[in-house]
Amino acid sequence: MKQSKLFTKTRREAPKDEVSKNAQLLIRAGYIHKEMAGVYSYLPLGLRTLNKIVGVIREEMDAIGGQEVHLAALQSKSKWDATKRWSDKEVDVWFKTKMKSGDELGLGFTHEEPLTDLMRGQISSYRDLPLSVYQFQTKFRNETRAKSGIMRTREFLMKDLYSFNVDEKAHAEFYEKAKQAYVKIFGRLGIGDQTYVTNASGGSFSKFSHEFQTVCDAGEDVIYIAEDGRAINKEVLNDEVLEDLKLKRTDLKEAKAAEVGNIFTLGTRFSEALGLNFKDEAGKSRPVFMGSYGIGPGRVMGTIVELTADDKGIVWPESVAPFAVHLVALFDEEGKVKKVADELYEKLTSKGVEVLYDDRQCSAGEKFGDADLIGIPKRYVVSEKTLKSSDAGSLGGGSVEVKDRVTGKVDMVPVGSF
Amino acid sequence: MKQSKLFTKTRREAPKDEVSKNAQLLIRAGYIHKEMAGVYSYLPLGLRTLNKIVGVIREEMDAIGGQEVHLAALQSKSKWDATKRWSDKEVDVWFKTKMKSGDELGLGFTHEEPLTDLMRGQISSYRDLPLSVYQFQTKFRNETRAKSGIMRTREFLMKDLYSFNVDEKAHAEFYEKAKQAYVKIFGRLGIGDQTYVTNASGGSFSKFSHEFQTVCDAGEDVIYIAEDGRAINKEVLNDEVLEDLKLKRTDLKEAKAAEVGNIFTLGTRFSEALGLNFKDEAGKSRPVFMGSYGIGPGRVMGTIVELTADDKGIVWPESVAPFAVHLVALFDEEGKVKKVADELYEKLTSKGVEVLYDDRQCSAGEKFGDADLIGIPKRYVVSEKTLKSSDAGSLGGGSVEVKDRVTGKVDMVPVGSF
Repeated sequence: MKQSKLFTKTRREAPKDEVSKNAQLLIRAGYIHKEMAGVYSYLPLGLRTLNKIVGVIREEMDAIGGQEVHLAALQSKSKWDATKRWSDKEVDVWFKTKMKSGDELGLGFTHEEPLTDLMRGQISSYRDLPLSVYQFQTKFRNETRAKSGIMRTREFLMKDLYSFNVDEKAHAEFYEKAKQAYVKIFGRLGIGDQTYVTNASGGSFSKFSHEFQTVCDAGEDVIYIAEDGRAINKEVLNDEVLEDLKLKRTDLKEAKAAEVGNIFTLGTRFSEALGLNFKDEAGKSRPVFMGSYGIGPGRVMGTIVELTADDKGIVWPESVAPFAVHLVALFDEEGKVKKVADELYEKLTSKGVEVLYDDRQCSAGEKFGDADLIGIPKRYVVSEKTLKSSDAGSLGGGSVEVKDRVTGKVDMVPVGSF
Repeated sequence: MKQSKLFTKTRREAPKDEVSKNAQLLIRAGYIHKEMAGVYSYLPLGLRTLNKIVGVIREEMDAIGGQEVHLAALQSKSKWDATKRWSDKEVDVWFKTKMKSGDELGLGFTHEEPLTDLMRGQISSYRDLPLSVYQFQTKFRNETRAKSGIMRTREFLMKDLYSFNVDEKAHAEFYEKAKQAYVKIFGRLGIGDQTYVTNASGGSFSKFSHEFQTVCDAGEDVIYIAEDGRAINKEVLNDEVLEDLKLKRTDLKEAKAAEVGNIFTLGTRFSEALGLNFKDEAGKSRPVFMGSYGIGPGRVMGTIVELTADDKGIVWPESVAPFAVHLVALFDEEGKVKKVADELYEKLTSKGVEVLYDDRQCSAGEKFGDADLIGIPKRYVVSEKTLKSSDAGSLGGGSVEVKDRVTGKVDMVPVGSF
């Protein structure tokens, strides 16, 4: 894409009403727009990045057999009454609204109830199991506080997968597979090394759930990390848990962390309440054993910014960058630079490389500053100076300066070799 | 995808609470699930079809220079107060809710206000124009009646594009380009021949807006079609309009139609109300001249079903079908059919052909009935009978029966030629 066409502008100053680093940088670089506290819109660069994250998650959910759906946001009371989650006393993040008839509706903050109900029409026999269903869908949560930028918002995209199995044993197998898929996802998204599978509070059907906690100053959670990489959420840390996990308090390191994913054994809580049963091999009716598995792509995006940004701006891992290459042309009056840069842009894009081409009429300083702020992994500079470069291999055609946003390392690469 | 893994089941009977053909068929075939009146979830087949429609629209919006964003659904009162569209007296389809602070929020039924406001931070000079911005985003509308299946719902995906130009003349050029893009879209979606660019009610800035009306019994509108293909919405048909368009009432044919798209000249209504101005070449501040352009992918999907279904089920055009090929295997006991069908499935999918492979253990009648109901354009049947076929070209390897869902035409194609 040509940057002269991109409608978003960068800003030098951080917006005054943002305290979080991720929102400050993402707004300054033109990725997002703040609609109100805890509500953001995604602009072209931001939507591209969000979609990259979604793409990685989708691939891994498909790889473990997940089937993609898209459920409605509007929720009718009856399904949530069945699980006692309709009342604002039980669930304090509901946004509620009303139909013209006066009937109350909720805006889905999660989807166990509607999906369990839906599945009653699809699952009847053990032959229909196992299966898992997921979606990327907008959730609404009436948060009291929202000052972590896109890491905690009142409206956000969420990947939620739900698994359906015949019993706890079959569930445990899938749960482990999903856990490994999550490890893979956070690895691919470039935050694997800082992300810990963390024991967190379970429910009636399991002692623990598992959170994926990324160590990060902006995180709202506190976790304790063992030397072998296991971790425990502060909320559940007690002597019994330590004994369970055969860990000593003194061997654990405390850290602030952001919960980027969580997986949870639901057991038969929802299937019993809503009547999702199947006939087993003996013909006996039994409730389906369920699990839920969530990742918020927006929170992941915010966490990546928090973790990798430097004093010049955002630093994206390749897998999530809105573009792979930021081609920066410093035009000369004769038009030589433009000719080479235009050709390079065409060549790269025709090869399928995603390029943001800074073809704007503005100063080199402005262009470099914006490139650092926007944070695309590779910066290719074409200028009078690089075209005069007579490095070995340039054959007189000049070079392109290739700079790595992470390491700052610069290479001169002959124009003809792209 | 293997059909034995697909979690949705077909139904013989139409749900009793659905009167519309599109919802009846889409529910029976497992494309959608009804959550409540006017609220549907999309199941794997339905989401695939919806995404195909989205993909076609996106390509054409990108082709006219549209930049994709994703705006929030939650709306704050202030922006809508500015245009006098907050009050339920002015806009009767609002769903409203409240934050914990007590502040009222709306659920966006359209996005002129937030996008115009957002653009104040991005547009300052004539050099920033023209530009156009679009999204695929979930709208909420508190409809009194909702009995047209997925053609009129309380929650639906919408592609809304907004254009920003320096003046009416520049706007008119883009408006025409967008109109042609819409003609192309409906052509690609297989409903071009039945879809008419229809003069409809305009506003302060244009005599007419234009609707794209698809002639269809399930449509809620009435249009009048001239021999040359122009059309007029009944709402605006009067002597003055006829004279304007140089048409005679007696030459017009009345038809029921569904509005699948609409384009509208907004002029400076929103930019003046919200203060979206730019400096022109003379340095004078002027309001931006805007237009809006909508298509509801769900309504398009419903309209296609209404138009093309036959007494056996849905009939998708190739461009929107969830899969290109429905491979139906009628297994024999020796496993010969399975071997050939498995190989064919691998071969086709490795070539990038999207195949739904009916590998279920059930009767031929059930498989054929489901294939007709689901409506994938090409059905490939592999059975003992087709493998024994000694057509010229089969070289003893047998054949595959290829049936076209639209025409019913059957060809025997040698197994080796795929």
